[in-house]
Amino acid sequence: MNAKPSSAATTGNPTHYDRYPSRCFSTPRHQPRQDPVLHVGPGAAGPLSAEELAQFEREGFLLCPEVFTRGEIHALRAAMDQAARQDAERIAEPDSTEVRSLFALHRGDHLPARLMRDPRLVHRAEQLLGPGVYIHQSRANRKPAFDGREFWWHSDFETWHVEDGLPAMRALSAMVFLDDNTAANGPLLVIPGSHHIFIACVGATPENHHAHSLRRQEYGIPDRDSLTLLAHDRGVQALCGVAGTVALFECNLLHGSAGNLSPLPRLNLFAVYNHIDNAPAAPFGGRPPRPLHVAERTAVAITASPLDLCV
Amino acid sequence: MNAKPSSAATTGNPTHYDRYPSRCFSTPRHQPRQDPVLHVGPGAAGPLSAEELAQFEREGFLLCPEVFTRGEIHALRAAMDQAARQDAERIAEPDSTEVRSLFALHRGDHLPARLMRDPRLVHRAEQLLGPGVYIHQSRANRKPAFDGREFWWHSDFETWHVEDGLPAMRALSAMVFLDDNTAANGPLLVIPGSHHIFIACVGATPENHHAHSLRRQEYGIPDRDSLTLLAHDRGVQALCGVAGTVALFECNLLHGSAGNLSPLPRLNLFAVYNHIDNAPAAPFGGRPPRPLHVAERTAVAITASPLDLCV
Repeated sequence: MNAKPSSAATTGNPTHYDRYPSRCFSTPRHQPRQDPVLHVGPGAAGPLSAEELAQFEREGFLLCPEVFTRGEIHALRAAMDQAARQDAERIAEPDSTEVRSLFALHRGDHLPARLMRDPRLVHRAEQLLGPGVYIHQSRANRKPAFDGREFWWHSDFETWHVEDGLPAMRALSAMVFLDDNTAANGPLLVIPGSHHIFIACVGATPENHHAHSLRRQEYGIPDRDSLTLLAHDRGVQALCGVAGTVALFECNLLHGSAGNLSPLPRLNLFAVYNHIDNAPAAPFGGRPPRPLHVAERTAVAITASPLDLCV
Repeated sequence: MNAKPSSAATTGNPTHYDRYPSRCFSTPRHQPRQDPVLHVGPGAAGPLSAEELAQFEREGFLLCPEVFTRGEIHALRAAMDQAARQDAERIAEPDSTEVRSLFALHRGDHLPARLMRDPRLVHRAEQLLGPGVYIHQSRANRKPAFDGREFWWHSDFETWHVEDGLPAMRALSAMVFLDDNTAANGPLLVIPGSHHIFIACVGATPENHHAHSLRRQEYGIPDRDSLTLLAHDRGVQALCGVAGTVALFECNLLHGSAGNLSPLPRLNLFAVYNHIDNAPAAPFGGRPPRPLHVAERTAVAITASPLDLCV
C-alpha cells in the first residue's frame, strides 16, 4: 500500500515536477496524499460547521441536505431542457443514444449556470479550498430509467492531473440532486477516506481518450486489488438524499455508481470547483489537453451571486 | 391498466382453467389478483404482528431485522462452501464463469438446508400461507464484487405459473441476508403493492428457457410501460438491512436488483415456501416442467425444526 512515489515520470509534462505520476508504471502504486484536504484549515469561516469541516477532512465527502428548495429544484429541472438545447455538450450512454451527460453547463446565463455561482455552493467551496475558486468542469449526469449504466470507480483528480494538468489536489465536486437519489436508482458510491491515498493507475493514455472515457472509462482507473483492500478497510457508502441535497466530495475521493434499474430516470448536476492558484498546467500525461467543454484552461475567480428564479 | 383477463389461453395447460394467462398475447395485459394475500387472515397467529400482516397484505413484502444471530450467520457463511461442493446446482454470471446462483439448497442436511426448516422461517410462512408449506425452490444468490450483474424486473409467480404449473398465488420468498444488504451492493428492489396486479407478459416461452433465464431473463418479463406506470404510482423501494435480516416477499411482487459495483461480494439465501394445496400442476405454458433442482414437483409439508449449530 505504501510504495514510495517515484521521481517525476519520464513521460508527461516536462516543465513541472510531477508529484502524482500515474499511467507510467507497469504495476499499481500507492502514495500518500501530498496536499492538505482543508486548504484554509479546520477553523475556516463559512457555511460549513467545524464538525462538517472535520468530516470532510477525514472522510472526503459531505452530504448537505435541503440546500436548495423544492421551488428551485423544480425550476432547475424545467430549465435543463433549455440548457440542453443551448451550448451544452452531449455524451451518450455506452450502449445507446440516450443522453448520459451534458457538459459545460456553467457557461451561459441559464438557471443551471447561475446555480453554480450561487453563494450556497461557492462559499462552501471557498471555505474548503480557499477564497478564489472557478469552475473547472460542469455537467449534468442523467441516469436514464432501466438502462442508465454504471460509472466505474475512479479518482477525478487522477484524470484531471494526467489529462488536464491540474497540479495539486485543490478541487472538489458539488453534486446537486435534482431528483431524490435513493438506493434504488444508482446513487453515488464512495470509499470514505480514500482521498488520503493516491493510486497511480496502470497503462498509458490512448489518444483522444476523452471521446470514449466519458461514455465508459477504461484507462485511469484504479486496479481491483487496491479497491478491494480499501473497501475492506473503509467500507463503501452510498450518498442518498432527497432532491435539493448537495453532496460535496474531494477531487481524489474514490467513487463510482451502479446502474439505474429503476423505471424512473435520475438527474444530478455537478460543478467542479478548483482554486485559481491550481490552474491547469500542461497535462502531466504528455498528451494535448482535453477540449474546453470538458476542462476549462483559464482560471478566473467566480463572484458569488444569489440564484434568483425571477431573473 | 385494467384490460379484462381473457378466458383460458389456447396454449398452455389443457387440463386446468388458467386464471392467469401469460405469454400468449401480443400486447401486455393487466388483471387484478384473484387470490388473497393473507391466506389465513389478518388475525392469523404466529411470529408476525397484526401490523406486519397488514403491511404484507398492502405492500407485498416485510423486512424482519435480526431474525438470525451473528453466530448463525457466521456458521451459515462457512457452510456455504460445503453446500456448494455437495448437490447444489451452479448457475454462472451472464458474462463470466463466476457463480451467480446455487440451487436446491433445501435438500441434504447441511446448515443452509436446516435453516430453511427453522421455525423462524416456516412459522412466518405458515402464518401468511396457511399451515402446511413446503419448499418449491431454494437458492443462494451471490453477487460477485464489481461484476455481479442485475436481476431484471419480474414477478416470480408469472414464471412459476407458466413454467412450473403453480395454480394460485399462494407462495412467498424468504430471503436471508448472509451479508449486509446496502445501497452500495445491489439490494433487492421492489415496487410496493405491485402484487395486487398480474401483468401478463408478451411473447411465448422458448424451449429450455430455464437454461438461459436463470442467467439473464428475457421472457416472462413485464413490459416497460407497465413498470414505469407502477413505479410512478407506487415508487421503488430497496430492501436494505444488516446480515441476519429476513425479507419476506409475496410471489407476485414485482422485483429486481441492480448490479453490485462494490468491491465486496454479497450473498443471500432464498427459500420459496408454497402451500401444499397449491402443488404444481402441468405448466400453464404448455412446455415440459423445469428440472427438479429449480422447481420441486412433490408437495410434502415441512416439519419445522429449530436450527442447531452443534448438530
